[in-house]
Amino acid sequence: MKSLKVGLLGLGTVGCGTLELLRNNAALITDRSGCQIQVIHASARNPNRPRAADTRNILLTDNPFEVVNNAEVDVVLELIGGSTIAFDLAAQAIKSGKPVITANKALIAERGAELFDLARAHNVPLLFEAAVAGSIPIIKALREGLAANRIEWLTGIINGTSNFILSEMGEKSRPFDAVLAEAQALGYAEADPTFDIEGIDAAHKLAILAAIAFGIPLQFERVYTEGISHITDRDITYAEGLGYRIKHLALAKQTPDGIEMRVHPTLLPVQQLLANVSGVMNAVEVKGDAAGPTLYCGAGAGAEATASAVVADLIDCSRLLDSSPTQRVADLGTRRDQAIPILPMGEIETAYYLRMQVDDRPGVLAEVARILAELGISIEAIQQKEPAPSEAEAEIILLTHRVRERAMEQALTEIEALASVHGPAIRIRLEHLDN
Amino acid sequence: MKSLKVGLLGLGTVGCGTLELLRNNAALITDRSGCQIQVIHASARNPNRPRAADTRNILLTDNPFEVVNNAEVDVVLELIGGSTIAFDLAAQAIKSGKPVITANKALIAERGAELFDLARAHNVPLLFEAAVAGSIPIIKALREGLAANRIEWLTGIINGTSNFILSEMGEKSRPFDAVLAEAQALGYAEADPTFDIEGIDAAHKLAILAAIAFGIPLQFERVYTEGISHITDRDITYAEGLGYRIKHLALAKQTPDGIEMRVHPTLLPVQQLLANVSGVMNAVEVKGDAAGPTLYCGAGAGAEATASAVVADLIDCSRLLDSSPTQRVADLGTRRDQAIPILPMGEIETAYYLRMQVDDRPGVLAEVARILAELGISIEAIQQKEPAPSEAEAEIILLTHRVRERAMEQALTEIEALASVHGPAIRIRLEHLDN
Repeated sequence: MKSLKVGLLGLGTVGCGTLELLRNNAALITDRSGCQIQVIHASARNPNRPRAADTRNILLTDNPFEVVNNAEVDVVLELIGGSTIAFDLAAQAIKSGKPVITANKALIAERGAELFDLARAHNVPLLFEAAVAGSIPIIKALREGLAANRIEWLTGIINGTSNFILSEMGEKSRPFDAVLAEAQALGYAEADPTFDIEGIDAAHKLAILAAIAFGIPLQFERVYTEGISHITDRDITYAEGLGYRIKHLALAKQTPDGIEMRVHPTLLPVQQLLANVSGVMNAVEVKGDAAGPTLYCGAGAGAEATASAVVADLIDCSRLLDSSPTQRVADLGTRRDQAIPILPMGEIETAYYLRMQVDDRPGVLAEVARILAELGISIEAIQQKEPAPSEAEAEIILLTHRVRERAMEQALTEIEALASVHGPAIRIRLEHLDN
Repeated sequence: MKSLKVGLLGLGTVGCGTLELLRNNAALITDRSGCQIQVIHASARNPNRPRAADTRNILLTDNPFEVVNNAEVDVVLELIGGSTIAFDLAAQAIKSGKPVITANKALIAERGAELFDLARAHNVPLLFEAAVAGSIPIIKALREGLAANRIEWLTGIINGTSNFILSEMGEKSRPFDAVLAEAQALGYAEADPTFDIEGIDAAHKLAILAAIAFGIPLQFERVYTEGISHITDRDITYAEGLGYRIKHLALAKQTPDGIEMRVHPTLLPVQQLLANVSGVMNAVEVKGDAAGPTLYCGAGAGAEATASAVVADLIDCSRLLDSSPTQRVADLGTRRDQAIPILPMGEIETAYYLRMQVDDRPGVLAEVARILAELGISIEAIQQKEPAPSEAEAEIILLTHRVRERAMEQALTEIEALASVHGPAIRIRLEHLDN
């Protein structure tokens, strides 16, 4: 029987989860892969710390380069994170002719182009299923399952922390800060939650998915990124009343003028399956020209869910030993990058939810409606709410039809300049996902 | 560049859809596969009939064996259906050393064991992604994406016709017969709808999914199969009032005593994502020990959706040319079959919805409750409905907790023997999918 000797970099949550999964399901994994997969060497900052995994038969070191350079190691599993030392380690492994498997979305999104070039030059597979959406085999679905399709768009809830926070705010009518604190206490959010709640993590993943879907280069820096920290439970309640749920959505879409790549809070009709994915679950919906819409849903993070994807890559890798490049799926699905422009945000088209504080007198709504009409923005619904007993100002809430974002920016500038409108308007994008 | 010359058996809906997809997305498919995939020879009962696809550069014949025996043909695409001539053709192709791709669930479910043996003996891939759930790459997800997992259960809505009928009955409160007639007029149901509405098609697909998930042999004949023709809009309405939706579910589950394989109408809590998959959509949910539950949803049938899966297999096949068996995924995911017993239906455990016509007098409900209690069946909810103005009998509707089916059969025999209970009781199984 074949064997695959693994060098593991990083013994954190996912590293220990991977060791445990390989141990618990060893017989089954050997049976399915036709290969004995065994971690023989692992690195951690403090190798002697007690861990959630049995490391007795594994050589441990605090120097990850020792693992990479171990001549016995067939494949390197990079579970350190970040894009600096992880890059150096992956590059070193590839240069030594060793396949690399990583769960590191930042590494792939920010430095994937260099790594894939290197991997091609050294004829080595570089696998990254675990980098996007944890347990969901979405990279495989996009690169292989939907390979016959021209992808029209894809969208997803791909950051579990943000989805947990928005779900809790909605279900329990609680403010953002309180739910964030709870998420931190539960371990769903980091002590510094910026990466998750400001959308950077989702943007990393979207850059990877979009590159595969559209055959474009990885362009993390071109993803428009807006987080959820400005979303209030009031907007969630109003949206629900109008038949919508606010989700932190990542969306990439091919239009005649170029590709949209954007991450932002979004109103979705409640009857959409995606709108009903709650808590820390992830989901990705892909619209192919032949397959139509397909949806993939599952746990987006956690030791075991991520280990499921890491070990799937190990099993794939065991089959790819001694393979030629034409026997492998191309790194990002296609064999050459398409030069398709990325649309600036002013050029994208979407619908909007708007909320503004206004004077409580007749005529204000008409003024707002006039500005929108003059800019060719049609209104789907409009409501004026009387001031609550403790408040002096009324509120206007409205939904628009689809419009170019540039026109909406212009409209908001004019609306906010009205004497009867107070403070900046709240503006949240709205998608129906049916076009 | 590599090339893959395809022989196509069957120019019906899926055959024409495949030709059109290969033509429309030719550049993209070549780019993603690194291979020119080209249908060169095709068979149809009447080759000269006008078709929905351009067949100008394809040699046509009414003899499918000519296609199989054409020395130029690298791979045979079987889209004829059924398990007799399709079997002979697939076997002939494999014996000539040609990979076979099929969308034929009956062929794989009923005669897959013979074909896979033959394919192994001749070192030839046999691919069948399109046989289950159309556009959804569920075979790939199970065989590869979730390969590290011990699968605890899987369940799905895998017959679009039944799902369309139940969805329409529920949304529009219409009776079964009227909706079936409409489905036939729309082309969603065959003139002879038995295969779909009696659950045979779903049982074919479940046998395939269960074989992959649990590493057991294909055992279509062991799948308990119950269709939807006895479901009434009244039961759908009552279920909805109790917070459940009736879906035609296929379910396979590993228990300590053996494996359950069953296809039947099932009440699901309305908040489950699966309960919200409506119309002709398919969905499969898989519970892995590491990944947790993952859900896959998409169009289950139709020319383009099925062609998406067929061409994905062609692209995979182009990579597998000259591969060795250890470089390929095992046919049904594992390399040897597990001898795990299949549970007889009397031994399965599930919850139940019951409805019975009873005398409109005090004490009947107590008699029914006593029988259930004596058999250790606990009641989750019970309702007695007064007779409608036009009716003489009252109705008892109840939901039970989980119980062994044998006990429920016994209870129903005793309940139906009560003088105060009229006619057979309606019994529909109920699943929460959380265990």
